[in-house]
This record gives sequence, structure tokens and C-alpha cells, in this order.
Amino acid sequence: MCGFGSTETTTAVFWQTTGMTTGTSKHNDLKAVFINCTIKKTASGSHTQKLMNRAAGVMRAEGVNVEMIHALDHKIAFGMAKDLSDDGQGGDDWPKLQAKIVDADILVLGTPIWLGVKSSVATLVVERMYAYSGDRNAKGQFVYYGKTAGVLVTGNEDGAKAVAMDVLYAMAHIGFTIPPAADAAWLGEAGPGASYGDVEFDGKPVNEDGTPAGYDNEFTNRNTTFMAWNLMHMARLLKDAGGFPSNGNHPDTWTEVANARDQDPELG
Amino acid sequence: MCGFGSTETTTAVFWQTTGMTTGTSKHNDLKAVFINCTIKKTASGSHTQKLMNRAAGVMRAEGVNVEMIHALDHKIAFGMAKDLSDDGQGGDDWPKLQAKIVDADILVLGTPIWLGVKSSVATLVVERMYAYSGDRNAKGQFVYYGKTAGVLVTGNEDGAKAVAMDVLYAMAHIGFTIPPAADAAWLGEAGPGASYGDVEFDGKPVNEDGTPAGYDNEFTNRNTTFMAWNLMHMARLLKDAGGFPSNGNHPDTWTEVANARDQDPELG
Amino acid sequence: MCGFGSTETTTAVFWQTTGMTTGTSKHNDLKAVFINCTIKKTASGSHTQKLMNRAAGVMRAEGVNVEMIHALDHKIAFGMAKDLSDDGQGGDDWPKLQAKIVDADILVLGTPIWLGVKSSVATLVVERMYAYSGDRNAKGQFVYYGKTAGVLVTGNEDGAKAVAMDVLYAMAHIGFTIPPAADAAWLGEAGPGASYGDVEFDGKPVNEDGTPAGYDNEFTNRNTTFMAWNLMHMARLLKDAGGFPSNGNHPDTWTEVANARDQDPELG
Amino acid sequence: MCGFGSTETTTAVFWQTTGMTTGTSKHNDLKAVFINCTIKKTASGSHTQKLMNRAAGVMRAEGVNVEMIHALDHKIAFGMAKDLSDDGQGGDDWPKLQAKIVDADILVLGTPIWLGVKSSVATLVVERMYAYSGDRNAKGQFVYYGKTAGVLVTGNEDGAKAVAMDVLYAMAHIGFTIPPAADAAWLGEAGPGASYGDVEFDGKPVNEDGTPAGYDNEFTNRNTTFMAWNLMHMARLLKDAGGFPSNGNHPDTWTEVANARDQDPELG
Repeated sequence: MCGFGSTETTTAVFWQTTGMTTGTSKHNDLKAVFINCTIKKTASGSHTQKLMNRAAGVMRAEGVNVEMIHALDHKIAFGMAKDLSDDGQGGDDWPKLQAKIVDADILVLGTPIWLGVKSSVATLVVERMYAYSGDRNAKGQFVYYGKTAGVLVTGNEDGAKAVAMDVLYAMAHIGFTIPPAADAAWLGEAGPGASYGDVEFDGKPVNEDGTPAGYDNEFTNRNTTFMAWNLMHMARLLKDAGGFPSNGNHPDTWTEVANARDQDPELG
Repeated sequence: MCGFGSTETTTAVFWQTTGMTTGTSKHNDLKAVFINCTIKKTASGSHTQKLMNRAAGVMRAEGVNVEMIHALDHKIAFGMAKDLSDDGQGGDDWPKLQAKIVDADILVLGTPIWLGVKSSVATLVVERMYAYSGDRNAKGQFVYYGKTAGVLVTGNEDGAKAVAMDVLYAMAHIGFTIPPAADAAWLGEAGPGASYGDVEFDGKPVNEDGTPAGYDNEFTNRNTTFMAWNLMHMARLLKDAGGFPSNGNHPDTWTEVANARDQDPELG
Repeated sequence: MCGFGSTETTTAVFWQTTGMTTGTSKHNDLKAVFINCTIKKTASGSHTQKLMNRAAGVMRAEGVNVEMIHALDHKIAFGMAKDLSDDGQGGDDWPKLQAKIVDADILVLGTPIWLGVKSSVATLVVERMYAYSGDRNAKGQFVYYGKTAGVLVTGNEDGAKAVAMDVLYAMAHIGFTIPPAADAAWLGEAGPGASYGDVEFDGKPVNEDGTPAGYDNEFTNRNTTFMAWNLMHMARLLKDAGGFPSNGNHPDTWTEVANARDQDPELG
Repeated sequence: MCGFGSTETTTAVFWQTTGMTTGTSKHNDLKAVFINCTIKKTASGSHTQKLMNRAAGVMRAEGVNVEMIHALDHKIAFGMAKDLSDDGQGGDDWPKLQAKIVDADILVLGTPIWLGVKSSVATLVVERMYAYSGDRNAKGQFVYYGKTAGVLVTGNEDGAKAVAMDVLYAMAHIGFTIPPAADAAWLGEAGPGASYGDVEFDGKPVNEDGTPAGYDNEFTNRNTTFMAWNLMHMARLLKDAGGFPSNGNHPDTWTEVANARDQDPELG
């Protein structure tokens, strides 16, 4: 049987229950931005969205202010620049989305898998974030320092770890902190098959009792929970520390402290 | 000119200088384990070792207790098990190395690149760490929770990011926290060429002034410095917090808090 | 000094010389499509284009009919469908581009590297090709059978092998044959720096004699040459064989020949 | 029900049936080497072996001379050298295995997945092959030219495409030709679960009728069949052509034909 409420009424009960913890939440000053990088123009058919909803639900239950963005609702131009409004691509909404990321403590990218890798839309989003990676935060560090990131992946059979490697690396490399187990995914058995949340595939029910594909997968549910909580914990730690500690990681002053250039590479 | 002291005397000066900060270091209760996963039997010819020495030097200058391990000095058996001493592979030193990792706050893996990926030895080390990933720490979390990890990569031309993706993902997935910019590397221009620390290639000096390959690379020195400091900062944060915060990330009790299974996947 | 003609006149001489072999070319019935997947809206500033021009030049010198496509000159919609003209994305030029690929013997994708992976545009192109991968050729095989593919990569420091892995795997998985050494790239030393064809970086000349970055790189030139020739050789072999041989690789009839299902997995 | 014969008698029937085609086989002059890169010391428990047996069975049914190698039955030393017998690692069997690869037309590597990537043993095997990649064949090309390669992957949930990318790229880069669909895999649904060929997991039967995990997976069986046949087809084409055609791909003479260095990079 399916763990979450199958009717709106039941769902409401869940929200009420978990909502009770919100009052004393240690996380209600945190902001999270979730970006769904599905290649579907509208969110309605996105399987990735369903898994993202669950992770967002955990954070909301803890009081986090979650904003859900469907990337293809926006015109995101191609190019390694901050603002491509005048590049002849019919406009550029990225600067507005970037502002939301900069304003948030937590970023979660959701993406499907195609041929074993993340989507074109996810690649585009990462590229545009990269174009801002030389910006600085209030402490003079690169702009994403002090934030934390995770990734959610769905597909019908394979590639979740490869996608997570790619996305989490990109985020860490430009300044995000990656907490433990910051990736969660659902995949079916090898070969074509149902996607997350499908009740039918190829004209047949996915499960005899009508449960959608993946919803009862203990592993996916556990990992999604761990990801949501670990992001909240890390955001809490960083916020309480006033951001990521700032010594030895400033682009301008790293040579003034103990640094690699001054160490003898021959001395083991 | 080469940035580090080119004579033992000068080097000593550097150590003395940076040593002065050690007395008031916020990092002298931290332990780091560095594992060199070169495929060279002895450390002497390892280019990766030279880059690792620099990162280790930064941490030592800040008072961190650094242990340097050359993986191939040890007999590490193949297999997804904790102790393969009796598997007919001629013994297994891994359990002793594992104990060092468990005892440390910081782990840095160093690896060369071959055909675009990490070394066989690095792959072996990660596999053996994985075999212990179901163990628990004192808080009941998976055993690597509360620790932080980074990676150092050398090669003569390409593959550093692919290797970092792979290693950092593996570490995060099993419980380590990855701070910003936790990877550093040196690579030369496309094609065969000098490796890090070489003064000659193909019978010709790498640099006319005798500086070894890579030693003066500002980008590599900066990134190595950032990595070293960010690992120290993260270890400090985690140690002061009594480990990684423990709610929503326990294998046994995650269903008792706000969790993914209880959230409605259809509710955006 | 730079190996290719630095004036139009000299270049003409090269063409004339290599053109002489064209008369007896074994390759003048072959068609190649090159797709530049730079994220630059116009081809003029693309470093990848310069490397692609060289590979295309080799094929043209041998009589191959080469068509060069700049992906962003076209409106390519997002989505896993054949024709997204009516998907509310402002049109879809992909079906016309797809027809060119289907009509060609050789496909070469060119892409820059961003954060260690292929561009968003390359990802989009591969996704759209994938949406057609269930189509059949005249022999009833999947549609890309009988064609051969390669990849060209430029970046300023790292990621060429990772990108080649990704692109060549995708192509092989959907039916292309990958000949030996089907990837070529140029990359500079670790860190920010000149891109392929740049004569200046950060206000300073890349080479004192004015040679652009990468143009004289022996390794890149050799690999680009190997790629171009190996694609021509493979296209020749496949064309002369009437396409990829057709037994055991038909989606409908594979169970009628020796097949995996009928083999005992326990029998070594 | 399971597709292959469940008793030795039935299996024999299959062999007899498929054996009938062997008499007129176009493939009985071909040699294939399969290397199982499981991290299990003995072949008996290897799930990967079971999938390899099926692919080998298809080739044998067509008359191919297949040799099956269990990598860990041999002492393979670490290092980027041809023969490490005297490197203090207790001997080196690789030169003997290398001779078998050089003597074969077809190479199939089999590997499990750990943390999303190929095994340490597979990494070691590829490294040792790489150390020979500068050798030449009878035509003066690099030594692996004229051969073809594929990969088989098993795991309990994820990573097959990432592993195939890595292995097939390495093989193509050093000279092998990769035919269409040269990879096949079996994986279960996300999370811990049965491996290929398991009849039980966690004390419960994998399938109620006793069929082992994966044996009836249509997709895996089809892809394994395609891989086996496509490797045979490619080996046939290459053998009949006297190896991979030799122009423009010789390390010593590539500048004497149409080559990249002589093409104008600015000329589109």
C-alpha cells in the first residue's frame, strides 16, 4: 500500500501532523529553491516533479520556505554570460532566476535522465549558474559559498548516480557545500518501463493494487528524506556560522595565509 | 620563479613562519588522512604525491595532524567485504587502513588519471571503504557522517573534473560532507607531456628557468589552498557541532520524523 | 610556425594539392554532417568551429560532401518527441536537421566543455536524435545503423575525454559505429587561459610568434587527422557492405537466431 | 518461465539447434576473449559471469572460438608498464593475458558496478591494456586497430551506462572499433535487491515461479544478443578488409596525406 495519503483529506491530516513540528522548527528561517529541469514544457507530465514534491514536502513540514520553479516556464537563453536579453534569442529570464538562487540557502535541482546523463535543461541551468560563479558574496568569497545543494533524479532504468556526480560536482566546484547523501532517485528495472508515478505502462497496471511506480520504494523514500534533512542541517550550520568560514578561500588574499605555493612539494 | 623555497634553508623559513600561526590554530585538534592512490609501487616517483605534499603542508602549518599513506605500500585485497585476510589473496591490510579513516576528521584521496578516469588503486580504495558504509557512528548514523573529504588529481593532460566527480560523489554518497571547491588538480596542455613536478620531458627542460611543471601554476596553487582550508573549516564546523546533526538521517528512525513517504507526490 | 596556410593564396595551394587526390578518391560518394554545439549564438566566435573546420577540411580534401551546421542558427525545441512544432516553444527546426543526419554517412558533433561536460546545446541535439532512435532503416534495423560518428571537443583546460565518452557512447548506443580514435580535442594547461585559436589571453599574446593557441599542437592535429580518416574508412566499409550487416540485430526477429535468452547463463 | 533450458538435456538441444548453423557459419574463424572483471576471487559467485556466459553462448553457437578469463585467477600487477614481473608485487601474469587479447578479433569486458562505476579489476585491466597501446600491428597502426570490443555490466540497481561509456571509450580511444549497441546490462529497481541470477534476496524468492533475477528480462536478452552479433559482424568486416584500412591513421606518416595541420581553421 502507498504510504502517503491517497485522498486530499488524508493528505491534509499529514500536513497537520507534520505541521505541528513547524512551530518549534529550527528551519523556518531557511529558504530553498527547487528547479525542475525536465524537458517537458509543462510541469503536469513531469515524473521528476513528483519526487521533487516529496522532498519539498519534507522541508515545508519543517518550516522551510520552498519555491518550486519549472525551468521551461521561463525563457533561458544559451551562452556563458550573465544576461543575454539582447543576444537575439528572444529574451532571457535567467537573471531573475539567478536572483532567487542567490537569495536562497538551499538549492535542489531535479532532472530526468536521457541516455545516461542529465537533461539539456539541467545542463543549461548549470551553465547559466556557472556564468555567475565569479561573483562575490558579502564576505568576498565566491558567491555560492555559504549555500548547500542537492539533486533529485528520475528515469525509467539507469543513470542516477552518473547524473548526481555531474550535478553535485558542478555545485561543489562553484561554492556550494554538499552534505552527506545529497542525492535521491527512482529507477525501474533494466529496459523500458514505467516512470516514477505512472500507474500504467504499455497498457498494463504497474502494480496490481494501483500504487504508482516508485511511490512505495523504501530506498527512494529513505534517500529523499535523508537528502531533505541533510540539506536543512547543513543550511542551519552554515547560517549559524555566518556563512562558510572565510580564511584561505578568498580569491584575493589566499597567498597571505598558509598556502600551497609556499609548501615544498618534495617534502612528504 | 618557483614560489616555494628552493633550498632546505628557505623551506625551513616558510615552516617557521607558518608554524607561528599553529600556536593559536583553530585546527590543531583535527586529524587528516591522505591516501595516495598512484599505481606506482613506491612513492618516490609519484607526481600526485608532490601535489598532496603541498595540501598536507597547508594543513600541517595550521596544526592539523596529517598522516600520509601510500596505498601500494599495503596489501589491499579485492572484494566487497570488510576483511579479506582469509580470501586467498595473500592477506589484507585494509582493516588497519580503515581504522585510520574512521579515526580521522578529514580524508583526502590523491589519484593520477589514466584514460580519463581515476586509478585502479583509487577504485580499490573506494570499494573497500564502501564495504564499511553500513557501519554506524556513535550517533547511529552511517559511519562516515561527521567527516569531510576532498580529492587531488594529477595527470599530463585531461580528466581531472571527471575524476573529482567520481571520487567526491562516492564520498558524499556514503556520508562525507563535501565543502566548496574540494578538488584541485594540475594538468598540462593536450597531448603527452610533463607531469606535475617534472623538470624535463622528452629530453628537454619543461621551463627554461628549471622550474618543475605545474609548481608555479597559480590556478592549481589557489585551488589546492582553497581545498585544504575548506576541509579544515568544514571539519571544524562538524566537530564543534558534535558531528553531523542527527535528525531525519537515521537508517532506523527516519519514518518517525517528516519524511518523503508521507508527502503527497502530486502536491506541488 | 603555423602549419596551415596563413593567407588565402597559400590555403588555395593546399586545397589544390590535396584536391589532386580527390579525383581518385575512394570517398567522394560520402556525405558528412558536422554539427557545432557551441553555446554561442553565432558561429563567428566559436573556438570549436575552428577545430571542426580542420577536420572538415581533411574530409573535403578527400572528396567527402561535408555540410556544416551551427545548431543555434536553428530553433531546436526541448522534449523527447520527433516534432515539437506545436508544443508552444515557438517552432521546431529539428525535423529538418534530423533529415540531414539520416541522409548522411558520417556525423561529427563538435562541443565546448563547461564544468567538465558537454554543452547544453550538445545535450539537446543528442536528446532530439534519441527521440528518433526507434525509427528503422531500409533493412529494418534501428535507423542509425550503417552510419559512423565522431566528436570534436575544445575547452580551455579539462574535460575532453569525459565529453567524448558521453557523446560517443550515446551515438554507439543508438546505432552508430565508432571507429578507432573517433575523438580529438584541444585543451590548455590547468586554469583559465586561451581557447583554441586565440592569439591573446588576458591582454598578452598566447605565443610570441603570434601563432594561435592550439594550432601547432601536434597531438591535436594528429588525432583530428586520425578521426577524419577513420570515419571515412568506416563509412566506406559500411557503404560497401550495404550498411551494417543484418542478422541478430533486428528488433523483431532476434529470437529467431542464436540469442542470449536461449543460452544457459550457468554454463561458462 | 525462463527462456533457456533449465536442465542440461534441454540445454544440449539448444546447442544442437544453434549448432546446426555453425557448419555454414561465417564466424568460425573468429576468436573472442571475454574477461570477467568481478572483484570476487572465484568465478563461482559472479553474477556478471552469468550474463557473460549468455553472450559467449551466442558467439559459440555461431562458431566463434571463445576464451573466458576470470581476471582474479591471475596475478595482475599495478603500474603503467608492459611487464611488472620484477616490480616487487609478487609477479605479473599480464603479459600472458595481453598476448591473448592481441591474438583475438573480439574483446568483451564484463564488470560489476560499485558506486556507479566499473570495478577496480576492470580499471586495472584497462590500465594494463593502455600500457601496450603504443605497440604497432603488422600494418604499422596502433596495436588494437582491426579489433572490436563490447562490454557487459551487471549490478543491482544503477550505473550501467556510465560504466559502458567509460569502458567503450577507453577501447575506442586505443584502437578498437565499437559496433552499434556494444553494451548490455542487467539492473534491478532502485535500492538494494537481487543481482543477476539470484533466486532469493533477503530470504524471499525473487520471482514466485523461481526464475532467477534478470534471466527473463527481454531488454537485457535483446541487447546481449545485439552486442554479440554486432561484434561478430564487425570482426567479420574488419577481418575481410585485412584489418582496419590504413591511410591517415599511421603515427609516422599522417602528415603525408590530407591532414588537420594543413587545413585552415578559419575556413568554414
